[in-house]
Amino acid sequence: MKARVFVSFKSTVLDPQGQTICSKLRDLGYPAIADVRQGKFFDIALADGVTPEKARQDIETIAHEVLANPVIEEYRVELID
Amino acid sequence: MKARVFVSFKSTVLDPQGQTICSKLRDLGYPAIADVRQGKFFDIALADGVTPEKARQDIETIAHEVLANPVIEEYRVELID
Repeated sequence: MKARVFVSFKSTVLDPQGQTICSKLRDLGYPAIADVRQGKFFDIALADGVTPEKARQDIETIAHEVLANPVIEEYRVELID
Repeated sequence: MKARVFVSFKSTVLDPQGQTICSKLRDLGYPAIADVRQGKFFDIALADGVTPEKARQDIETIAHEVLANPVIEEYRVELID
């Protein structure tokens, strides 16, 4: 089984990297680009035999405690297969 | 309209950050974690009036030329709405 964890800044948090990319893309000739926000994702492969419930429970805990900074970031967990 | 671009190392490329996270998670008591690979994504908002075809064409070019390093990274474009 695999899980994917998306981590990104909360919408209230400024994303200077995203803003820099946005202005660069407009300079490069893409005026239709209105906004860019950057995030990261983690593809986590789990050993065989883990139930989907146990997988989601563990990955949610891992996302909250290790992969994301709950003060400025939000996360979302997807179980892939 | 919004597009999301996923950028990650090619599967043949070593991901030391992912490996470090994987071993740390196992140390923290998650033995079922078999592998971790990290990537980044970009949420790109486009101005109104851009056709899906033009949006995909521009975002694919942007992904290839700006957001990803084609030598070691691969990318995938999703048009969200």
